[in-house]
This record gives sequence, C-alpha cells and structure tokens, in this order.
Amino acid sequence: MRCRRCTEPAVIEVRRHNSAFCKDCFVHVVREQVRKAIRRFDMLAPRDRVLVAVSGGKDSLALWDLLLGLGYDATGLYLGLGIGGYSDRSGRITRAFAESRDATLVEVDLERDLGFDIPTAGTKGSRSTCAVCGLSKRYVFNRAALGGGFDVVATGHNLDDEAATLLGNTLRWDTEYIARQSPLLPGKEGMVKKVKPLYRLSELETAAYAFLRGIDYVVEECPLVAGNTQLRHKGAMNALEAASPGAKAQFFLGYLDRGAPLFRQADTAELRPCERCQQPTTGRFCAFCRARAQILGQRLGEPDRAGPPEELVAELSDEVLPVEIYGGAR
Amino acid sequence: MRCRRCTEPAVIEVRRHNSAFCKDCFVHVVREQVRKAIRRFDMLAPRDRVLVAVSGGKDSLALWDLLLGLGYDATGLYLGLGIGGYSDRSGRITRAFAESRDATLVEVDLERDLGFDIPTAGTKGSRSTCAVCGLSKRYVFNRAALGGGFDVVATGHNLDDEAATLLGNTLRWDTEYIARQSPLLPGKEGMVKKVKPLYRLSELETAAYAFLRGIDYVVEECPLVAGNTQLRHKGAMNALEAASPGAKAQFFLGYLDRGAPLFRQADTAELRPCERCQQPTTGRFCAFCRARAQILGQRLGEPDRAGPPEELVAELSDEVLPVEIYGGAR
Repeated sequence: MRCRRCTEPAVIEVRRHNSAFCKDCFVHVVREQVRKAIRRFDMLAPRDRVLVAVSGGKDSLALWDLLLGLGYDATGLYLGLGIGGYSDRSGRITRAFAESRDATLVEVDLERDLGFDIPTAGTKGSRSTCAVCGLSKRYVFNRAALGGGFDVVATGHNLDDEAATLLGNTLRWDTEYIARQSPLLPGKEGMVKKVKPLYRLSELETAAYAFLRGIDYVVEECPLVAGNTQLRHKGAMNALEAASPGAKAQFFLGYLDRGAPLFRQADTAELRPCERCQQPTTGRFCAFCRARAQILGQRLGEPDRAGPPEELVAELSDEVLPVEIYGGAR
Repeated sequence: MRCRRCTEPAVIEVRRHNSAFCKDCFVHVVREQVRKAIRRFDMLAPRDRVLVAVSGGKDSLALWDLLLGLGYDATGLYLGLGIGGYSDRSGRITRAFAESRDATLVEVDLERDLGFDIPTAGTKGSRSTCAVCGLSKRYVFNRAALGGGFDVVATGHNLDDEAATLLGNTLRWDTEYIARQSPLLPGKEGMVKKVKPLYRLSELETAAYAFLRGIDYVVEECPLVAGNTQLRHKGAMNALEAASPGAKAQFFLGYLDRGAPLFRQADTAELRPCERCQQPTTGRFCAFCRARAQILGQRLGEPDRAGPPEELVAELSDEVLPVEIYGGAR
C-alpha cells in the first residue's frame, strides 16, 4: 500500500476512508481533523488558557500533544483516583509526558482532596463505580478550571466514545441526554466551557497517532471497568463498523448534522440551585452532593459539618452535564 | 417454574417481563398484547375488512390466527415471489392454514402478474434483492387492498423487526424514515391504511405462540437473505438484549413515546405524483416505477408500451412508505 497523500509506502490503513498513509502524512491528517473539529465548533480561541483532562491513556495524551503542537496554551490536569497500581502507573506516565514536553501539570488527588477514593465509592453509594468516577471527574475538572482561571476544559473523547454514549442514550430515548451530547458545551454560571477536539477520530486512529508520535501511554484498561455498559455499547458499534466501515462516523456525525437540532428544541429541563452547593441541577440536590453524602455516610438536608470544604463551589450534577468529561457510564 | 397468572406449571419464560406462563395463559397474554396494540393506535374498527399480508412464516400466520380469533373479518393475501422451493413450500403452507381455518386467501404471483420474479429482479436492477422484494410487496399489498375494497392492510412485523429497522434508520439518522416508522400508517389518496398489530411482541414470543397454537409454518429463512443489513441489525439488538433483557422493547417503545413526536415535526417531505404512475413520491418517478423499468430494461420518461398494465394504479415508492410492509431492508 502507498500513502494516499505522498505515494510513499504506507504504515496505516484507514478503512472507513478507504485510504492509507505514511507516518508523516497520517500525523498531518490527524492534526487537520483536530483543526477542523476546533474550527467547526469554535472550540478554542488562539489565546485561550486550556485545561486538558489527562488520564495517562492514549486519547488524553494524544490530545495534549496535539494541542501543544497546534500552539495552544495547554495545561494538563491529572486526577488521582486511588485505583491501586493502575493509578500509580497512570500518574507516573502522565508526569513523564509533561516533563518531556516541558508542559505544566496540575494534580488533584480524590482521597486527599475530597475524602474518598473510587474503589471505596463503588462499594458505598447507589451508583456504579464508573458512574461515580465520571461524576467525580466532571466535578474536579470543572472546579479546577474555574479556580485556576482557565477558559476551557478539553477532554480526549474520541469518535468511539461519542458513538457508544449516543447509542446508549438512543437505546433509552433519553431525549435530554441526547440533546446535550455535543463536542462543545458552552460555559455558563459556575460551569466552564467544555470541548472534545478528538470527536472526529476513532480510537484506532488516536492509538496509531500516539504510537507513531512515540507517546508512552497506559495500555491497560481500568481494572474496575469490566461489564461496564459503555464497553458493551462500544462492542455493538465495533460489530456494526466491522460489517460496514464508516458506520460509527455516520452515526455520530449524522447525529450532529440531522439529529441534534431536533433534540435541542425539546430540551426544556429547568435548572435550579442545588440546596447544598448552589450549583445548577434539575433536582433538589445535585448528583455530586447526593453521591458524596452516600459515600461519606452523611444525610442530605442537614448542615454539612464535615464538608464540603469552602472551596468546593463548583459542584456539578450529571443531570446538567451528563457525560461531558470522560463519558462516564451511568 | 410456575405460571405467573394461574400458578400451573409454566411452559415458557419471558425474561424481559421476568415472568413465566402455562400454555393457555401465554396465549391469553399474547392476545391481550395484540388487543392493546390495536386499541392504543386505533388500528382496526370492529367491522373493518382487513387484508393480512401472509408469507407462510410464523409472524404472519400468527397474526392471521390472532385476528380471526379476535373476531375480525381477515382475508389473507399471499404473494408468490418465485424463489424456487422456498416459495413453493411457503405457498403450500399458507393455503393449508387458510383451509384449516376456513378463511379466504387471495393469491398474486409476481412473475405472472407483474412480469418479473425476485431472483431475476435481484440481478438486474441497482437495488438489492431484499430492497426490490420489499418494494414489490408494498406495491402489491396496497394495490390488492385498494382493488378489493379492504379498509386496512395488516402485516406481521414484530418487535424485533421494528427495533432492527429503527436501529438502521437511527444509525444513519435518516430523519424522514425515522419519522414514518409507526405501527399505524393512516391511509391517504391512493394508499390504504397499514397496521402492525404484533409490534409489542418479540420474535421469540410470536414463534412460541405459533408453536403452542399448533400452527405449521415455514421455519427456513429466505435463501436470498444472507448478509442482509436488517439481519445484522437484528443481531446487534439480540446481543444488547442478551446483556440487558428488555433493551429491544425499551428502544422501540421508548421511541414511540419520546422520539416519534420530535421526528414527526421535522417530517416536511413534499409529495408529488410520479410522472409515470401518478402515485405520490418525493422524486420525479416513484421507486417502484424506477425499479421495474430497470428490471424490464425499459427507459423511464418514454411512453411505457409494455406496461405497466392499466390496473397498476397504486404504485408505491419507498420514499413515501419506506418499510411499512415486511420492513424490507434497503
């Protein structure tokens, strides 16, 4: 096979585009897809201070690498989840990447800063481990961005993540969740703007990009993720893609073009302040406050003596921003 | 296991309802589901003359049996597709069922009455075999119903058919097709009313009903159907259902409740008469006229010397009524 752009020998085939590329041209193509995504949704302005949510996996490190390469002022934020050796290795790899790029990395530790880790949270609350993990990530990234004066949070969600989440939401016809699934969530009072610049790239493509760019990333899956609904929906989309290359892109990009306008009209959820943390929610208490109270064995509705600490002002509910960071399965 | 209704020993388990039933109670439950479907969509009036599209398979024979049992005036219509031994066996079984119930069966033969059979059509036109078969069925059933003075055509689409079709339409975000997917399509000028009374019953449930009622049906799949997109989408839904019983029903019934109203608003396709047959279409010529011309080697836009015969007045395009009979894959 020859590279479609320069006719040199190809190193990667992209079936859904019926194309193959050499290393340099593939890296170029990936950059152009990200540039296109940013332009199409007006995600980033040239002088924006961007906070990149990095987990140590291929997608978030590829995203950080791409944004730095495109000249953005991109700071990394790593959240320690307390998942044993998996978290230790993820943290080490993320720090090594930041050093190698001379980039700034901010770190938050869930146990130290918020009083619980993910393995504990998964056994205490009524939510699944993955749900409380996604909720915590959304909370921490939003709070860190607001506190640090960042203009926008960027996450490494790729096409596979978005298609699987959309499939899950559509299988339930959860019209509010569908309406809010977008590569761009504008900022509003207490909620920083969120963007997903990799939404046009498949998981295979971000993995190939990371490999070809020599990025060392955590290959192992989170050990707590087995049986996760999101993985099942990814499996369903992969089976459809195998039989019909391009199915994922057709599904998610087709939704953005033709589905999203219909659902946005119907999104009439009313928001009010959470009675505990004042962040917008559709219920009485936001999802984060409810989850944290369960985990810490506190009762909502009573004064919160143990916390949350004063600085926890930017709590988020997943009713408001269902899956904008890490696409946490529910 | 015991029957949920009468506590006698059960013969069938319905996982998505977390229930089991004895023979008599299962037959009762199936009848009630059909009654509920008919009531919910106002499908049939007590004195309606109903034309049931029967293929000899479990769904259409179960439907005919159910409608007769519920006291409807239900005539069968069998369309000979010319698919060798498969069609021969299907015809024989359908005739035997009609005799055993003392019910009226109308027969149309595609080759004799319209000049082509399905195996030929599949090799000549630009459409797949399944697409031209579905289109021909829609055409013939509509025409026969109008010509015979029937009030409504009933087809045996079950929950699995509807969920798979909806999945296919949603994967493409084909908003017009999605908007028109309904258990009831009202009649209009040149198009008879169409209903799908089995939309609440899974394929497993219609098969169990047919078996328990002693209905002899064609078990073999159509030999031309291999690799069909609809089968692939059924496979995807079956995998999701296996992991999460009730997923199919949640998807299709959830669509009817929450999705359909959004899509209906957006369905603004304008119809105009086909320049050849005068039936409504969104293009210049309707899909049936285009397909038939291709198969017979004729040119559209010229006078049609060979046909279509005078009585072929009720041609249908799949732009107008995409999958209302047999859910023909495209």
